[in-house]
Amino acid sequence: MVKLKKVLKKENNNKAKEREKPLIIAGPCSVENYDIFEETVAFLKECGVEYIRGGIFKPRTSPYSFQGLREEGIEILKSIKIKYNIKIVSELLDLRDIESLIEIADIIQIGSRNMYNYPLLKEVGKAGKTILLKRGISATIEEWLSAAEYIALEGNSNIILCERGIRTFETYTRNTLDLNCVPVIKQKTNLKIIVDPSHGTGKRELINSMSLAAIASGADGIMVEVHPNPDKALSDGEQSVNFEEFKSIYKNIVNLYNYIGGMII
Amino acid sequence: MVKLKKVLKKENNNKAKEREKPLIIAGPCSVENYDIFEETVAFLKECGVEYIRGGIFKPRTSPYSFQGLREEGIEILKSIKIKYNIKIVSELLDLRDIESLIEIADIIQIGSRNMYNYPLLKEVGKAGKTILLKRGISATIEEWLSAAEYIALEGNSNIILCERGIRTFETYTRNTLDLNCVPVIKQKTNLKIIVDPSHGTGKRELINSMSLAAIASGADGIMVEVHPNPDKALSDGEQSVNFEEFKSIYKNIVNLYNYIGGMII
Amino acid sequence: MVKLKKVLKKENNNKAKEREKPLIIAGPCSVENYDIFEETVAFLKECGVEYIRGGIFKPRTSPYSFQGLREEGIEILKSIKIKYNIKIVSELLDLRDIESLIEIADIIQIGSRNMYNYPLLKEVGKAGKTILLKRGISATIEEWLSAAEYIALEGNSNIILCERGIRTFETYTRNTLDLNCVPVIKQKTNLKIIVDPSHGTGKRELINSMSLAAIASGADGIMVEVHPNPDKALSDGEQSVNFEEFKSIYKNIVNLYNYIGGMII
Amino acid sequence: MVKLKKVLKKENNNKAKEREKPLIIAGPCSVENYDIFEETVAFLKECGVEYIRGGIFKPRTSPYSFQGLREEGIEILKSIKIKYNIKIVSELLDLRDIESLIEIADIIQIGSRNMYNYPLLKEVGKAGKTILLKRGISATIEEWLSAAEYIALEGNSNIILCERGIRTFETYTRNTLDLNCVPVIKQKTNLKIIVDPSHGTGKRELINSMSLAAIASGADGIMVEVHPNPDKALSDGEQSVNFEEFKSIYKNIVNLYNYIGGMII
Repeated sequence: MVKLKKVLKKENNNKAKEREKPLIIAGPCSVENYDIFEETVAFLKECGVEYIRGGIFKPRTSPYSFQGLREEGIEILKSIKIKYNIKIVSELLDLRDIESLIEIADIIQIGSRNMYNYPLLKEVGKAGKTILLKRGISATIEEWLSAAEYIALEGNSNIILCERGIRTFETYTRNTLDLNCVPVIKQKTNLKIIVDPSHGTGKRELINSMSLAAIASGADGIMVEVHPNPDKALSDGEQSVNFEEFKSIYKNIVNLYNYIGGMII
Repeated sequence: MVKLKKVLKKENNNKAKEREKPLIIAGPCSVENYDIFEETVAFLKECGVEYIRGGIFKPRTSPYSFQGLREEGIEILKSIKIKYNIKIVSELLDLRDIESLIEIADIIQIGSRNMYNYPLLKEVGKAGKTILLKRGISATIEEWLSAAEYIALEGNSNIILCERGIRTFETYTRNTLDLNCVPVIKQKTNLKIIVDPSHGTGKRELINSMSLAAIASGADGIMVEVHPNPDKALSDGEQSVNFEEFKSIYKNIVNLYNYIGGMII
Repeated sequence: MVKLKKVLKKENNNKAKEREKPLIIAGPCSVENYDIFEETVAFLKECGVEYIRGGIFKPRTSPYSFQGLREEGIEILKSIKIKYNIKIVSELLDLRDIESLIEIADIIQIGSRNMYNYPLLKEVGKAGKTILLKRGISATIEEWLSAAEYIALEGNSNIILCERGIRTFETYTRNTLDLNCVPVIKQKTNLKIIVDPSHGTGKRELINSMSLAAIASGADGIMVEVHPNPDKALSDGEQSVNFEEFKSIYKNIVNLYNYIGGMII
Repeated sequence: MVKLKKVLKKENNNKAKEREKPLIIAGPCSVENYDIFEETVAFLKECGVEYIRGGIFKPRTSPYSFQGLREEGIEILKSIKIKYNIKIVSELLDLRDIESLIEIADIIQIGSRNMYNYPLLKEVGKAGKTILLKRGISATIEEWLSAAEYIALEGNSNIILCERGIRTFETYTRNTLDLNCVPVIKQKTNLKIIVDPSHGTGKRELINSMSLAAIASGADGIMVEVHPNPDKALSDGEQSVNFEEFKSIYKNIVNLYNYIGGMII
């Protein structure tokens, strides 16, 4: 493993730590309009979810796909945030948007496509917010940790890594969820790590199983896409669960997280 | 998914099934000599393990590496099998060895390198033994199921799949354990599936975590390399656990398997 | 690079060697019936091709796909071989077929799926025929050379390697042709290497370009699928060229091979 | 292939086109200081190279590696550009640097790590300069063309694609050069494509062969790293050629480019 001063553990201290609650981030892939977002937030809040994901700047492979509500989305996030007293996780694509995003986001997400975007990493390193750093689609663990080091070197050590699947030859699933990285990260670094089974599988019917697997591998939580009507979502519908499915996943995760605590080395 | 008549489920029947015990196959990568093998079997038997792995024909990348004890190994397996009343899982490489292997093996393993070896698949399809079919190192799920179909078409449906990691760009771990395939296999097919965290990670310190993750993803069991002194093993020492480590993993797996039952869709 | 006694060059002797003609192996993916095969051979012979490929044992992912004419194919090969005085390249899948294949084949092909089939490699190492060893679909160069070493250790050094594309994330082409390996093999080993642009691309319209690229990278020749009516081929039609296309590719290859000689280090 | 309005050919017009000279971009990975850069430029100019690469903003995996001379480098580029009357190709990492880079660069390079950086793509789409768009390290051809479409949609169609190797399981070479993409791009799009054998192989001794292969596959040119003393280079020394090696490669490329013209479909 490369020399990294900030993110690697000084010594491999394996004392069992007091475990808090799992970090569960849920919500729609993108904020589509006020009503759908509110409906989703109201439901998630009732479940017990504190952190809501809601993309307003969407990085899309095709320039012809829905790119997010942008400024309009910020207003929706602001309003719902106050009304429901929730915490917001939202992605930053363009460093010129950082100030408006800081205003409303509690966690700033750096997406897969920007894991190697060093100017952006440096900028959020100065931002004084928790950063959710997703793994690049073909980034090695070392490159991912080096990206975290870029952030940490600017003074910001509040970094949560998020494994979201890597690109392999397998095409049946959208990506290959690499849970091996979870115990590696937990053993070698000071960072938290959560898992995104929505992107990691690309298939709704696999999300419950892979959420459980993520928690059992030692992850600190999960990030999952929830939509009131996944088949009508403007983005990522195939990998979003509906309310009923999420309720059951949420309960399973919380229970397993508590149960598994003592088993993790 | 391709049309396969034998291994795919007629209908996606998701009724919760009565769950038996997890299938745990443990033992050395290869049988090295009588004493080490006996010591390992005695320990595993005491733990409660019924199925012992013990390779005597070893497929090795280099022709200069240890190739297994071969005929000598068969004698050791025979003798220990009777003495300890265990079940043997051993790999078949060469179809000319099938008769001598059938005599002592309860489960015949087809290794990763032979997943596309169709003459071998057909031969074990006639063998009247349970077959453990490991996934090829870069086999898609479809190709893997097609390999199982080759076996099933000869009349043998006692097939257990084994996910053992796939080859990706990530080099920190030996392979990338693809747990996504576990719920896919459970949902689409009639087959059992277990997971090999030893080959799937290549690193001893990741085996507990990834065994738990495998069970949480819905796997029917695990296959793990155990050696009294991993650092001195003739093959795969880095990914073998010692007795103490295995004891803890075994207990965790059995407990989690029972706990998780109701959570799996 | 691993220690290999037989296939690696003693010293990196870069003296320009006298270059013979390129090795061009052409023909149908599989022998389908007497008439189509004869028509193809007659055409290729007239072009100047000496080595004809013609599979009679076909390794197919699905057990329900055409598996080759087998014994019937041997009779066809025998008869056409004598009539047209050609050399035959044909694949061996099952070591029990080796004697009947040796009778008619001048070069025995070990396909991608069998590159790790060590009993088969050892058997052809004793066969006294030139072996065409295709690279495994996800085999590293080191593993490939180790497979060649298995053959050479049995006394047979007449080995021609064949790069046929590797499995990557790219799905637009069937495989990714890895021409990097050509100068590696030429610089490090004593072996010949040819390239299969049919499997390496999976697309007819790319075969001319990639054949030229292969020769320019330093390959000793190419192996290409030719069919009188590719759209009606029983296997691999999409990646077979028709007669007219082949004629032009053949001419290009021969010319470029001569032209490029002095440029290769 | 996805619907793209700007970069895809209206019809597949395969009329042989008049071929100009190959586009050869050469120079050091990064501008290290005035003297080394001048020495390199003087040599390349004498060879006949018009386009000089010289990175001053370097995207490096580790924050502790040399990051480029930045502003100081701009002054060096300015001065040398005038003195030698050359054209400059230099990489843009941070959209805030675009104005200073436009002043001195004739071609703005978007590196592999930024192929998915859509705000950056849009910005250079407005820049009125030719853009060299490198393929992302695990980008599919479709994603790459979509990135080009982002640029073209802003009104800038002067886009040159650059294949620079993709990430696969093979570790002997730094990347796997995917030349299959060259004829795909030439057949499907209006764009030029060049190949970077330095990054595509990571090994100096493979660069001549893979440059030839690139040209034979139909590429419009190459981009290659040249350094007076590769072993002492601050970045990418292993994959840089020295002056003598480059001279021979240059001559080979120009000759082959002319020779091959008529063979490309």
